Amino acid sequence: MTEQTTREPEITTRDSLLDRTMQNLREAWRDVADWRGGLLSTTPNPNLPDKDAEALKNQMRDCLEARGGEVSARARAANLGRLYLSLNAKGRKRFLKILATEFDSDHHAVNKAAEQLRQAGDNSEERAKAERALRQALQPPRGRLLAQLNALPEGFHFLVDLRAELLAWRQDDPALGALERDLLALLVSWFDVGFLELRRITWNSPASLLEKMFVYEAVHPIRDWGDLKNRLSVDRRCFAFFHPRMPDEPLIIVQVALVDGIANNVHTLLDESAPVFEPTAADTAIFYSISNAHEGLSGISFGNFLIKRVVDELTTEFSNLKTFATLSPIPGFRDWLDSKLQESDADAELLTAAERKALVTAANAGKEPVSLQTLLATSDWHGNTELAKALKPPLLRLCSRYLAKEKRPGGTALDRVAHFHLSNGARIERLNWLADTSLKGMSQAVGMMVNYLYKLSDIETNHEAYRGEGKVMTSSTIRALLKS
Amino acid sequence: MTEQTTREPEITTRDSLLDRTMQNLREAWRDVADWRGGLLSTTPNPNLPDKDAEALKNQMRDCLEARGGEVSARARAANLGRLYLSLNAKGRKRFLKILATEFDSDHHAVNKAAEQLRQAGDNSEERAKAERALRQALQPPRGRLLAQLNALPEGFHFLVDLRAELLAWRQDDPALGALERDLLALLVSWFDVGFLELRRITWNSPASLLEKMFVYEAVHPIRDWGDLKNRLSVDRRCFAFFHPRMPDEPLIIVQVALVDGIANNVHTLLDESAPVFEPTAADTAIFYSISNAHEGLSGISFGNFLIKRVVDELTTEFSNLKTFATLSPIPGFRDWLDSKLQESDADAELLTAAERKALVTAANAGKEPVSLQTLLATSDWHGNTELAKALKPPLLRLCSRYLAKEKRPGGTALDRVAHFHLSNGARIERLNWLADTSLKGMSQAVGMMVNYLYKLSDIETNHEAYRGEGKVMTSSTIRALLKS
Amino acid sequence: MTEQTTREPEITTRDSLLDRTMQNLREAWRDVADWRGGLLSTTPNPNLPDKDAEALKNQMRDCLEARGGEVSARARAANLGRLYLSLNAKGRKRFLKILATEFDSDHHAVNKAAEQLRQAGDNSEERAKAERALRQALQPPRGRLLAQLNALPEGFHFLVDLRAELLAWRQDDPALGALERDLLALLVSWFDVGFLELRRITWNSPASLLEKMFVYEAVHPIRDWGDLKNRLSVDRRCFAFFHPRMPDEPLIIVQVALVDGIANNVHTLLDESAPVFEPTAADTAIFYSISNAHEGLSGISFGNFLIKRVVDELTTEFSNLKTFATLSPIPGFRDWLDSKLQESDADAELLTAAERKALVTAANAGKEPVSLQTLLATSDWHGNTELAKALKPPLLRLCSRYLAKEKRPGGTALDRVAHFHLSNGARIERLNWLADTSLKGMSQAVGMMVNYLYKLSDIETNHEAYRGEGKVMTSSTIRALLKS
Amino acid sequence: MTEQTTREPEITTRDSLLDRTMQNLREAWRDVADWRGGLLSTTPNPNLPDKDAEALKNQMRDCLEARGGEVSARARAANLGRLYLSLNAKGRKRFLKILATEFDSDHHAVNKAAEQLRQAGDNSEERAKAERALRQALQPPRGRLLAQLNALPEGFHFLVDLRAELLAWRQDDPALGALERDLLALLVSWFDVGFLELRRITWNSPASLLEKMFVYEAVHPIRDWGDLKNRLSVDRRCFAFFHPRMPDEPLIIVQVALVDGIANNVHTLLDESAPVFEPTAADTAIFYSISNAHEGLSGISFGNFLIKRVVDELTTEFSNLKTFATLSPIPGFRDWLDSKLQESDADAELLTAAERKALVTAANAGKEPVSLQTLLATSDWHGNTELAKALKPPLLRLCSRYLAKEKRPGGTALDRVAHFHLSNGARIERLNWLADTSLKGMSQAVGMMVNYLYKLSDIETNHEAYRGEGKVMTSSTIRALLKS
Repeated sequence: MTEQTTREPEITTRDSLLDRTMQNLREAWRDVADWRGGLLSTTPNPNLPDKDAEALKNQMRDCLEARGGEVSARARAANLGRLYLSLNAKGRKRFLKILATEFDSDHHAVNKAAEQLRQAGDNSEERAKAERALRQALQPPRGRLLAQLNALPEGFHFLVDLRAELLAWRQDDPALGALERDLLALLVSWFDVGFLELRRITWNSPASLLEKMFVYEAVHPIRDWGDLKNRLSVDRRCFAFFHPRMPDEPLIIVQVALVDGIANNVHTLLDESAPVFEPTAADTAIFYSISNAHEGLSGISFGNFLIKRVVDELTTEFSNLKTFATLSPIPGFRDWLDSKLQESDADAELLTAAERKALVTAANAGKEPVSLQTLLATSDWHGNTELAKALKPPLLRLCSRYLAKEKRPGGTALDRVAHFHLSNGARIERLNWLADTSLKGMSQAVGMMVNYLYKLSDIETNHEAYRGEGKVMTSSTIRALLKS
Repeated sequence: MTEQTTREPEITTRDSLLDRTMQNLREAWRDVADWRGGLLSTTPNPNLPDKDAEALKNQMRDCLEARGGEVSARARAANLGRLYLSLNAKGRKRFLKILATEFDSDHHAVNKAAEQLRQAGDNSEERAKAERALRQALQPPRGRLLAQLNALPEGFHFLVDLRAELLAWRQDDPALGALERDLLALLVSWFDVGFLELRRITWNSPASLLEKMFVYEAVHPIRDWGDLKNRLSVDRRCFAFFHPRMPDEPLIIVQVALVDGIANNVHTLLDESAPVFEPTAADTAIFYSISNAHEGLSGISFGNFLIKRVVDELTTEFSNLKTFATLSPIPGFRDWLDSKLQESDADAELLTAAERKALVTAANAGKEPVSLQTLLATSDWHGNTELAKALKPPLLRLCSRYLAKEKRPGGTALDRVAHFHLSNGARIERLNWLADTSLKGMSQAVGMMVNYLYKLSDIETNHEAYRGEGKVMTSSTIRALLKS
Repeated sequence: MTEQTTREPEITTRDSLLDRTMQNLREAWRDVADWRGGLLSTTPNPNLPDKDAEALKNQMRDCLEARGGEVSARARAANLGRLYLSLNAKGRKRFLKILATEFDSDHHAVNKAAEQLRQAGDNSEERAKAERALRQALQPPRGRLLAQLNALPEGFHFLVDLRAELLAWRQDDPALGALERDLLALLVSWFDVGFLELRRITWNSPASLLEKMFVYEAVHPIRDWGDLKNRLSVDRRCFAFFHPRMPDEPLIIVQVALVDGIANNVHTLLDESAPVFEPTAADTAIFYSISNAHEGLSGISFGNFLIKRVVDELTTEFSNLKTFATLSPIPGFRDWLDSKLQESDADAELLTAAERKALVTAANAGKEPVSLQTLLATSDWHGNTELAKALKPPLLRLCSRYLAKEKRPGGTALDRVAHFHLSNGARIERLNWLADTSLKGMSQAVGMMVNYLYKLSDIETNHEAYRGEGKVMTSSTIRALLKS
Repeated sequence: MTEQTTREPEITTRDSLLDRTMQNLREAWRDVADWRGGLLSTTPNPNLPDKDAEALKNQMRDCLEARGGEVSARARAANLGRLYLSLNAKGRKRFLKILATEFDSDHHAVNKAAEQLRQAGDNSEERAKAERALRQALQPPRGRLLAQLNALPEGFHFLVDLRAELLAWRQDDPALGALERDLLALLVSWFDVGFLELRRITWNSPASLLEKMFVYEAVHPIRDWGDLKNRLSVDRRCFAFFHPRMPDEPLIIVQVALVDGIANNVHTLLDESAPVFEPTAADTAIFYSISNAHEGLSGISFGNFLIKRVVDELTTEFSNLKTFATLSPIPGFRDWLDSKLQESDADAELLTAAERKALVTAANAGKEPVSLQTLLATSDWHGNTELAKALKPPLLRLCSRYLAKEKRPGGTALDRVAHFHLSNGARIERLNWLADTSLKGMSQAVGMMVNYLYKLSDIETNHEAYRGEGKVMTSSTIRALLKS
């Protein structure tokens, strides 16, 4: 009998992609491991029982002591990586727990160096020496072991995926949290923006790369290859950052439409039957989707640089572009509104008398009172022209308030997408009524979308105002809504 | 208003691909033509009326006389090409007719050189001179004009498509046939097998290339991207020839499955849910689809070289491969059988008494006579186990006779796929019952497929035997069927 | 003992490059030939004696009859190629002679077709048929055999080199001349300008490519790698045409200097210690060297297209460029002048009285008569300021006359470089005194060089005037010289 | 007047290469800086006087506070980089000193965190928190500013060069030493072996890359392009590590000769007129030159991995290779010997009576006593066969003692090349008499060279023995010499 694996399905989920990555790793590391011979039983128990745990500890120690030289140590690290892949979730947690606790920084050495520092006082030379010793003592060996895995084929990718696992598990155990932070520090250094490469993605890109867009798209799900092809038409641009050690993996993807005037509706942008626009005639670039591809890189910020770089690229290619703006979802509005609506007397608080009246009229010709909550719960209210018309003014006003005024404890915008663009120096430009009536669009923001405007000359000031004083910059249109 | 073109649909037809090519040409040539200024009215009548025809003749003459130098002549040729693209079918035929008749070889010069030759007699020097003059005089200027188009961006591709049009129209006019032969001579030289590059097509190939496979696949239509991805799995290989001047256009595509033993059913091969086979363990390579991509290259043979080159590639990559065979359709069997069945007393001619009896028993428990023709006309007879069982022996026998014995007037096999593989030195190896029960498979060959075997050591002898004496090589299995 | 070959010397000569090519071919074909087994004795006599000649004839016949199929025929052609490489000059000539005479066109078939044509008279259908038959009969089989070699690795390059050999030998035998013409026809088709790729050569190009520039440079020999690097500085551009089947072989190379004003001295251009010019500030592009790389491609014109393409490239990169001109050698002036000077009373014919007087004064303070011929024979006369001053006016005048007035029988310019640029539509712009005082410069044109100007708006008209009426376009400066 | 820079000389020195790099940086950063406007006077005083120093401090602060966002901060960092390039050595030192001292870690925050740690005692949660705070406080802001430069074009390369400057200056000021260590930490992370790419260097590599080999070769200087080409012949291999952010810069280069038996003489290897060896017949790979290219990367070890990777590559390509060894210089032998010879009664200590007698006989037929020191000072003694013969036994013995027995205080081998190979797991295999009689070879090791042998099965054990116990592994030949 020959070995058989399941024929690959058409990729549609993030999970199947991860599975495939793990499979690739197993294949990539098979030979590396053969290079050196196994240190653990060849078919370890996937639960990593106690007896294996002890062997594991020794193997980790051998790696860190670089027995047999640095090359051999890396080879042993391959074995550790291969072992990790063969474990189930329980075994993996044990593996990581051992790494986190047994190879933490040496408390004794840390205390000693701290004491040295205290004694150094103002003696700058002594102080420098003590700081150096302290810095050294505070580097837990587990971090070096993680770094050794980078020498493996695909080891870099493995570490990114490993952090995704650690993020999911760190709640269960603070030791895993500490390990996760070590790994983050490593990744922050390696994913320095200086190493990132901006590449355009087109219909001439490899199918295996385009296929990943289905998985990574986080804003407007891609229906099928026709939808995807449309997003790569001549009046569109798609860019992503890549890292040289993960050349086939986009890190963050941005999709741009080249249009005339600021787009106010995402269905138009995604309509495959719409005519193609002559891109050299476009005056506006609309960023309508920005998606981070790797959970394991969360907390490492690329978006800011990406937007800047893409604006540069577009400006170079299209001299007629004057306006750079987004067409963005408002992911938290509905939740915020719902919580408001559950307060007693919500409608009186949130709506004017005139608005309430208009709603009742539209809903049932004024026959009986009806709450905003009830109306929004009606499926398909946006298909009812009268009702939609009555809902529009209060919802626009409430949404502008949500975006511009509602803050988190630290003073940043409550809406996470708003926070992202405001941090980058954009301003809130315009709310668009019934701009996304998909199920997702309705449930996130009762069909509204928002444009954030990147005015190149104001970006720096806007950023400072938002970061320093928490000031949210808005257009006059939004300001009018806020005042109403 | 800005210029608008229709947003591209997901490509599914050969026509939409041709349209796109024409559109690409128009764009590619727009600037070339600007380079030099137009010689015809800028928006010519697409019917090419008489007055324009006269202007056209002059422009063609200018090109051929290379007025302003060779570079300018090529620029003028661009104008001619652009003009051609702007015409409708009627206009194009007129265009080509003018080219064919007005720029034919010079009869007077030809006659003169022929006379020179006659007078040269056995004087070898005189004779050589005369032959040279004759050869020269027989090169019609229209050929040079076609060649000038090659200097344009995509001009090479244009000439290939132009021949496809000429092939369609040559019946209507012998002059177009002569032009088509000139173009063929040009293409034969340019598509010399020495210029072809064999490239593997994988799931990492550009989506824009993979998309063309949907259009060019001539044997087993590709259902969707999942089907396509399956045909590019690790236990498959797909190769194509490319020409350096059409680097994104496959010329001929072959699809291979790596399996254990000679495949007998195409549904198994195309089943996306079947397990993946470990390719290094495969002992057999099955060529299950060979498709020519360009009508305009018909008559220029690539398949022979392609198979040889692919066998070389596979042998290098997989040392366990022992057998190279096809799983091929039998496109002409049903037609041949139907014509036989229309003769009087067909069943008596074609079937043995026992077979006839078995058929009647299977069809209606022997109650009443039934003809083979009637049975085959029953839809879904292959779902009737009894009936299928009864039909199998006579149909296998008849099909083996069709493949191995039925010839065209020139002595070559009647079936065109059989002819292709027999010419290449393969032998008929095995008939496979109910190997393709798709609509196409049933209508072409009542569900049967055939394996042609390429035994490397016999290829040359087989080829000679077939080419020289029309001898068809068969396996003992087939010979047994033929004798039965 | 293991096989040893001589360690490669630093390439400096065309011969060593050819040797290396031949060696590459031998290696490239070793495996191809193994593929099929030898038809000749494995170590043939390099003289190709009669007995081998007979075997050769049979092998050629087998190729042409495509015995064993087209693939096998090409394999046999590889054997022929390998055999050819193993022969010495005498053997090769015999090889080619056999090919030329034994596989010439079939006289009987040609005569028959010619007769058919005669009988066809005005019957257009019969005539077309006869012409077709005649064209067919006039294709000598030897041409097909040459084409078969193209399928070999490097076979294309081999055919180019083969033509170089045929050109050298065709004087010896008219049959070789006929074969050479067949090969030329093949190469003309394959080297159609549509297949050529313009590539820039820079200091980042492979050393193995740059090394070839030493060999191919035909105008100003490259002294060493420092000289070469200087010619690839930021204020220089170097371009070459390549063919996809010979991707590492430049076909024709042009070297351009970006300067301020039309350059008048080649030493300045080639001075490695001169400051680098900021290329974006340049208003003039000087084409100071154009070299054909392959003898085997002589008669196939690339220069015309090359100049056009390079002008396009430069215009795109440098928007300040206004002037495109050459700084060219005048290879035939000295020979022409010398022949004039040998006529009796040459000085009286060629010089004015004042000039003669000035010369004598400068030469020996007027003491004794001295002829122009004698003066020019003096080594280093150009170092003598007085003398140089006296020689300048007559030599400039004579040279302008040589360039603009002296013609070949067909009416084209006598100087071959002048003919090349005039055919391309340039005009004679300026003569430069003491512009190249190298040994070569002195012996070709007594130190003078000439600028040809490519004025884009005039190129077409200039070309027509020169081609049609033999009219040579000149600047007012040159016209003044001509009148003086 | 247009801007002019000096025409580039043929690169021969490391300095000219550095100059060119700096020039490249200036060009690369010109536009980046324009992007954002200058913060300092546009033409700063290259000495960086006090008033500019203050402005600089503010600019550094702005970068670190990321005013205007991270993108702007990087833009400001570009300005700092540009400023740095415009300074002279004095100004640069001041620049770095400001960075080192003004942006050191915050002492107060460090002390506070250290105190927190002390109070945490055994409370693991508190302790973890305190360690985190301490780690954070110990990251001096100056490090982040260095990292920001990485986002610039060529910024990565700049940082490598910057460290080279810091290494040269750190003696002058401990603050620069601290900055150098911060930079080292950054580079260690970024030059993790996982990011390095092994590439082969061949005669087809870009001339601009090959040119760098002249500069970086540290063992046997490359004479000219002919010498270089010889080192890239078919019986040679040259490999280098590259980093994706410095794709044109080799980091460490190794040159290998494929030979029969272990090479004992470097002149033979570098002899351009020697015949080429058929590499597939070679049984031995000789590493005859390993050169680190960048001073700024000293202390970051690549050699170990490089040798391992190259052995893998060679084994894959050449199945006949059995032996991997070096032919290495012995850089410290002569110095060591000279110091020994300066001790009183040195000859009696170092030589046997027989050896002394033999020396005197060879030197002057035994007429008068002569010291070893005097003899070695004789120029060209190795040309004197008699003398050389007498010197051979004692010098071989002394050299084997030097290599195998002489240690540094830490127990590692005194000779630095010996230490490198012994650390990597090689053993001392053979001393080669008169193996390098170049000036350098004589002055370093009186003409001797040594082979280190890499026996794959022993590498790990050898490494452990050397690292753990300082045990030097030797061949029986060397052991015999040691005993003699």
